[in-house]
This record gives sequence, structure tokens and C-alpha cells, in this order.
Amino acid sequence: MPLEPKQDHRLPAQLAAQLAQRIETHALRPGTRLPSIRHCAVESRVSRSTVVEAYDRLIAAGLIESRRGSGFYVRLRQTAKQARRLAASPSLPGSPLDVNWLLRAQRRQSPGSEQPGAGLLPESWLDHEMVAAAVRGVGRSRGSWLLKYGSIEGYLPLREALSTRLAQVGIDAAPDQIVTTSGATSAMDIVARRFLAPGDLVFVEDPAWFVMFARFAAFGARIVGVPRGPDGPDIAALESLLAHEKPKLFIMSSVLHNPTGSSLSALNATRLLQLAGQHDFMILEDDIYGDLHGRHGVRLAGLDDGRRVIYVGGFSKSLAANLRVGFVAAHPALVRELRDIKALTGLATPELSERVVARIIVDRAYERMLERVRDRLDECRERTARAILDMGARIAGPPTGGMYLWADFGRDTNELAAAGSREGILLAPGSLFSPTQLPSTWMRVAAATCLNEQAMSFLRRAMFRS
Amino acid sequence: MPLEPKQDHRLPAQLAAQLAQRIETHALRPGTRLPSIRHCAVESRVSRSTVVEAYDRLIAAGLIESRRGSGFYVRLRQTAKQARRLAASPSLPGSPLDVNWLLRAQRRQSPGSEQPGAGLLPESWLDHEMVAAAVRGVGRSRGSWLLKYGSIEGYLPLREALSTRLAQVGIDAAPDQIVTTSGATSAMDIVARRFLAPGDLVFVEDPAWFVMFARFAAFGARIVGVPRGPDGPDIAALESLLAHEKPKLFIMSSVLHNPTGSSLSALNATRLLQLAGQHDFMILEDDIYGDLHGRHGVRLAGLDDGRRVIYVGGFSKSLAANLRVGFVAAHPALVRELRDIKALTGLATPELSERVVARIIVDRAYERMLERVRDRLDECRERTARAILDMGARIAGPPTGGMYLWADFGRDTNELAAAGSREGILLAPGSLFSPTQLPSTWMRVAAATCLNEQAMSFLRRAMFRS
Repeated sequence: MPLEPKQDHRLPAQLAAQLAQRIETHALRPGTRLPSIRHCAVESRVSRSTVVEAYDRLIAAGLIESRRGSGFYVRLRQTAKQARRLAASPSLPGSPLDVNWLLRAQRRQSPGSEQPGAGLLPESWLDHEMVAAAVRGVGRSRGSWLLKYGSIEGYLPLREALSTRLAQVGIDAAPDQIVTTSGATSAMDIVARRFLAPGDLVFVEDPAWFVMFARFAAFGARIVGVPRGPDGPDIAALESLLAHEKPKLFIMSSVLHNPTGSSLSALNATRLLQLAGQHDFMILEDDIYGDLHGRHGVRLAGLDDGRRVIYVGGFSKSLAANLRVGFVAAHPALVRELRDIKALTGLATPELSERVVARIIVDRAYERMLERVRDRLDECRERTARAILDMGARIAGPPTGGMYLWADFGRDTNELAAAGSREGILLAPGSLFSPTQLPSTWMRVAAATCLNEQAMSFLRRAMFRS
Repeated sequence: MPLEPKQDHRLPAQLAAQLAQRIETHALRPGTRLPSIRHCAVESRVSRSTVVEAYDRLIAAGLIESRRGSGFYVRLRQTAKQARRLAASPSLPGSPLDVNWLLRAQRRQSPGSEQPGAGLLPESWLDHEMVAAAVRGVGRSRGSWLLKYGSIEGYLPLREALSTRLAQVGIDAAPDQIVTTSGATSAMDIVARRFLAPGDLVFVEDPAWFVMFARFAAFGARIVGVPRGPDGPDIAALESLLAHEKPKLFIMSSVLHNPTGSSLSALNATRLLQLAGQHDFMILEDDIYGDLHGRHGVRLAGLDDGRRVIYVGGFSKSLAANLRVGFVAAHPALVRELRDIKALTGLATPELSERVVARIIVDRAYERMLERVRDRLDECRERTARAILDMGARIAGPPTGGMYLWADFGRDTNELAAAGSREGILLAPGSLFSPTQLPSTWMRVAAATCLNEQAMSFLRRAMFRS
């Protein structure tokens, strides 16, 4: 929420308290870079001197630290008590949005509800019966495989099918370069374990689904955002960051980036790989939305001849979230290391889910379903876009496809989300997509929102009220 | 293998090379305590001065370090090159056993093979069709649950069923004190993440399945063994270790301990909990064999009123290893932290496997199968015990039940395992159960071995050859 501009003398304390509260609840995680003083002043609608004083209070309380030439960071070790004391001091204006509540609601939501903040496709577009039939089919398969441990690398027929699918988007990865994981989440965790030590630097895109980066922060990594443009990461901004920062990893999405829906250009991809080589960092290419893009788009892993790219995929978005089947592909030496970490963390693979996915993706039915989903997404995204443009919102992009629109609603979308929650409407405010999780006027809108008349009407009312 | 006693002047270099090789291959993992000089001299059948000189060479090479009053430890950071150089120098007598090969073979083995080194029950004793039928049943269940994310805590009906089962062995844990995991392995990994930082000390039992402790060593923990006696950990030995060591965690099994088959006495349990309180360490109670003990035996978690015990269970041994369903139970505040770590590492639970397990364990069929398994184990363990006693082996115990016998064969069981592997027979030599993985005359023998005439004949021949 914006700080009240009238109470000038209380502003630095209020801003410090607001930030301290975010640090205490880990909405601002240890290692996160705070926005620059200029940026924070614009975002919070206060003067720069207010921000300077607020940051000074946080430094004095041991909650953040200033790093020469690099900015302000949440300290890795601050006591919860310090944060609590500072957060509790002045009363905060407005009612803060409970981000954790929002995330729990997001996870619990039925995919059938077509909420604007949904992170899953409408239930009726996916095919529960196709998946359930595959479960029953796997239950009829021969052998006593359920009684023994699966392989560590993952169910071989699945890895073979994945290798074939990757070839169709230009990625040359043999089955033994692929290791299955418990969803893309677990793939990222394994990569984080391999590469990160406390204090290491990780570049991510901004905006992006920042909740995902908690696992990198959990390893004590510092998280720094690189602006995402319509054709990929902003190369000029990345170069200027690289002039004085040395990241270990850059986490990015090539196609159907969440939340902007943008996809990487070939030129941008080439520059990215050059920079990774010059500055010696690895790129984690998160392609969990890739199947919703068909065979279009440039994947970094397909262009990588310097062994710089770790490719992560999964089936939560395009098939069935509950199966928890993801995978990681990389060059042979690295993949062996990732497999060993997988063995340490979970011993063997749960072959049951992997057999279900293998059964489905070798079947034509999966491709046919994806085609139907893409057609529906294109149609709905168009209708939803027109409707929110009519409300006065501005859409970034245009998106190249996929599940989301990224739009500027010109008002604090945390407040919008809090109002929505009171009417049972789930929104995904911009704060969830920002490294600092500060309030923002941007919001991610599910392409299928046009199917939810109640949600459309709520948004229309909210926009006309101002 | 024992070192050749003739080549006296080469012995220190040989012993150092043998240890360096184990360090290089991570058979001796960073942080592991080496055996005391006296113990190593006995084990390797060399003089103490030979051991002193060998350890000096390893210290000089930067591979191990001496810690005042605590012994010798494999250094956390030694370069692979150093280990390789030292390991390569003198030629090693005998042909070393490839522990990694053995572990891969163990994982790949069919549960139908009734091998002496098996870590799973014979296939025909378990019930593949019961599990497969549950898979099909779950594939017929209503709702579109496969399409959405499962809960983070785990499938509620499973946690309810687990809570009921735990009550039957005297453990009072509400469903919200239980979090499901991908096998017991993943439960241990989550606990390690919560409690361990590099340099921390972890006590484990000796003997125990030491491969399991790789995940604690991966966090940079030092692993120290506490001798396991017939009624639990050796309390006197534990007390003397606690006089100058401060562990964070003690990993132990109450019932049907692997490999000895021994179970905890009530007196030992009481002393353990007292010591945990006095010396401020947590106990991870690994109960993955518990269902094979019926409702017998003392569980620490049932006696714990100081919130010292973290209970870990699973279904790999008693139902179906491939389902990868395990769980952790602890006091409410801790369980919330463990759930958050689970969320970071894998987001949500794979409900498919959890629904299969829930369906089976609420059914009488699971209990009936367990009763049959226990009867068969008792009968076979008796027959196998008689047979190996007749061969001249000595059995520890007697075991209180379960899948294993722990026996002293009076010869290097690594050599026995290498000979066995040439005839397609899988053995589990004592080195796999030792913190140092040094050769030993002990071996774990599966209770069902009597059903494998080829394996019995191999053991008989090997024992009579001497």
C-alpha cells in the first residue's frame, strides 16, 4: 500500500517498519537486494530523503547492509526479534495483504475456477480422464516393478520420450543427459545445491514468479533482478550489471515467460550465451510453459555449444500438476552430478507418476489436447485483453502466447487483490513478481479470465470506482 | 582386504594409499572420523606405528586432519588431485571391492532374487497385485485432483491413517504433526537441512547402513559412530563421547535395527531421552522396519516429553519401494518448519502414490500381508541362522525379528562379496555398515537366504575352503 503523503514526519519510520515487516515475514528474503533509493522513492511515492532515512534505520537495526557499488541487501543473519521490534513500532496505514494467504489460496484453488490470479489452466481444458485412464493403465502393466526401487536417473522410457520431444524444439539431449525430478521445483533445488554457497549471486528476471526464488535464497544466495523485455532479458541492463557483479547462475525463461508471455529472440539468445561465456556463469532455462507454445520459439539449450545451459521442464502446467513430474537436462558431466544429488535427496524416482506421464506423452492424445489448449488460449487471451483494455489497463507485450497477460492497472494491485479476496476472487498482484515484493500497479491476468463473469465484473467495478 | 604382513617397509604407504583411495572415491566421505590408531591397527592387522605413519602421510597430503581430543577426520576440502596422487602411488595388494558397483547392484536387484545381501523382502512375500489394484482404484476415484497441486503437508486421509497407526505403537501424533516425504530418505534430507551446518556433529549407530549418512556428510557434518548393542545404543559409550563432543543430531533405530535386528529396551530408551535433554541434541528415530515388528517394541517418540524426537517412517520395506512414500512426525512447531523446507524442495506432494498407500493401509489386507510376512520371516530367519551357524559363523543378537541376521564370518567379507559377485551372488559385507567402510569380518545376511540354494552353497563352499 502507498504511504500516506500527509504524515510527512512519520514517513521514514513507516517505510522502515513496512520493510522490516517484509523482512520478518521473509517476503523480503535474506540476500535480496532492496530497490535503489530512487526506485523505492517512486514506488512508495515518498521523497528520496525519506528512503535514505528509512534505509539508515534498517541498517542501524542490523536488518540490511549497504554493499559498495552494489546497493542495499537484506542481511543473511538478522535476528527475528530485531525485525519484529522495528515492524511493530509505528502503526501501518491501510490493511496489508497477506502474501502467504494468497499463495496458499493459489495452491488450493481448483483449476476449474478460472480466476484472474490462476496459475493453472481451466480444469475443463485439461483432460482429467486421460490422466486417470493412464493411471489405470499403469496399474495393469506387467512385472513387479512397484515392489523394487526405481532407477535414480528416472524411468528410461520417459527419458527416451523426453529426448524425442526436446529434439522437436531443437535441443539435442540423449536420454542419459536427462534426470527426472519431483516437478520443476525439485529440479531447481538440485541445481541450487550444485552451484550455490552462501553469499553467491543469482540473477533472475524481473518481473518473474519470485516465490520460486525462495529456494535460492534458502542457500544464502543474493538474488538480483535483470529487467525482462519483450524479446528476452534486457541485454544492456545485464551487461551493466555484469560490469561489477559476478553471478553464478542466471535463471530465465526463453518462451512464454511468466508473467509477461514474451519469448526470446534469436539475437537476444546469442548475446546471452556470449555473455555467459565471457562472464563465466551458468544459465538455468526454465521451460515449464514450453509445451503451450508448440514447436515455436528459440530455446537457449538448442543453441548452447559452451555447456552453459541447464534446461528444466515439467508437466504441471500442460498436463497435471499433481503428478509432480519434472526433469533437468544438461551436458553429460553435469547431469551425473545432478543425478548424484537427486540420489542423496530422495534415493530413487517415484516411477508410478513417471510411467503415467510416459504413457501419455508417447500418445497422440497429449499433442491433440495441447493443440486444443493453444487454440482456446489464443481466443480467450484476445477476449480478456480487449476487456481489460476497455477498463483502462495497459498490456505489456503483446504476449507471444500462453496462459497470461501482464497489465498495468494504474493502481496498487495489492489493494485490488485484498478487495478481490473479500469477494472470493483470486488475483496475482505485481508484488508477487518483484524481487522486493513491493506493491506495484501491475498484475498478472490469466488468459481464461474472460470465462469468469463475476471476476470480470469485479475488475470493471474496481477500475470505474477511481 | 588385509595388507600383506610380509612387506613391512611398504606397509605405511600401502595403508595410506588404501585410505586415500577410499577418500578419493568418497567411500570415506569428508567429515568422517577415521578409526582410532589402535582400532585401525587391529582392523588392518598392522602395528600401531604403521598406522601412525600412514595417518601422518595423509595429514601431510592434506587429506585428513587431527582434532585435539577427538581423533582424525577426513578434511572437508581436499582436492581430488591430492587423493588421486596418493592413492595411485603404491600398488595395492588384492583386488578392491567396488562399493559403488555393489550399491548399484543392490538397488537394481529384483526383490524376487532372495540374495543374502538383499535389502528388500522376497517378491513373492509382498503383494504386487494388491498395490497394482490400489493404483487402478485410485485411477477410478472421483474429482479432478490429478490436475491441481496437492497439499504441502501431504494427502490428509493418509496422514489420518498414519496417525491411527502411530497410536497403535504408542506414539501420539495428530495428522497435522505429520508431513509426508518422498521416502524416508527425503525425510532425512529435510531434517538434515533443518539442523545441520558445515562442521556440525552427527552421531549415528555403529553398525548401521552407512550409505544413508552420505546426505548428512553432504551438509559438511562430521559423522561419529556410537556402538549399537543388543538393547539399543551403548549408553556408556555414548556418555563418554558426550563428555567431549556436542552432537546436533543422533540418528538411530528403535526396533529391528539394520543390520543387527536388535530392538531398544525401555531402560535404554529412558536413558537416551535423558541424555538428549542434558546435552541438548535431537534424536532422529528411523522406524522404516517398524511394521515388520507388529505392535511390539518401544518407540522413543512414544516416550518423548521433551520434544527431542523426530520420527521417520516409510513403506519401502513393508509394502512397495517404488511408491516412495515416507513421512516425518515431530512436535507442532518443528513440523511446520519441516513442511516449509519440503515446500522449498518440491512444492507439493505427489498425491498419486500417497493415495495408493492410504487406500492400502486403511484396508485389512495390509495387516494380513504383514502377519504373513512376519511368520515367514521368523521361520526363514531361524533356518538361515542354523545354516550359517553350521558353517562356523557367529550370529550377533539374537535378533528380535525382521529381515536380517548380523553375523561374523571370521574372514574379510569384502573378499567374500567380490567372490560372490563373480558367481552372481549379492552380499552385504560389513564395510557397508561401518563409518569408515574399512573391511570387516561381519556381514548382513537376509533372513530369506535359506530359500536361495545357490547362495547357501556358495557360502558353505567359501567357509569350508579355509
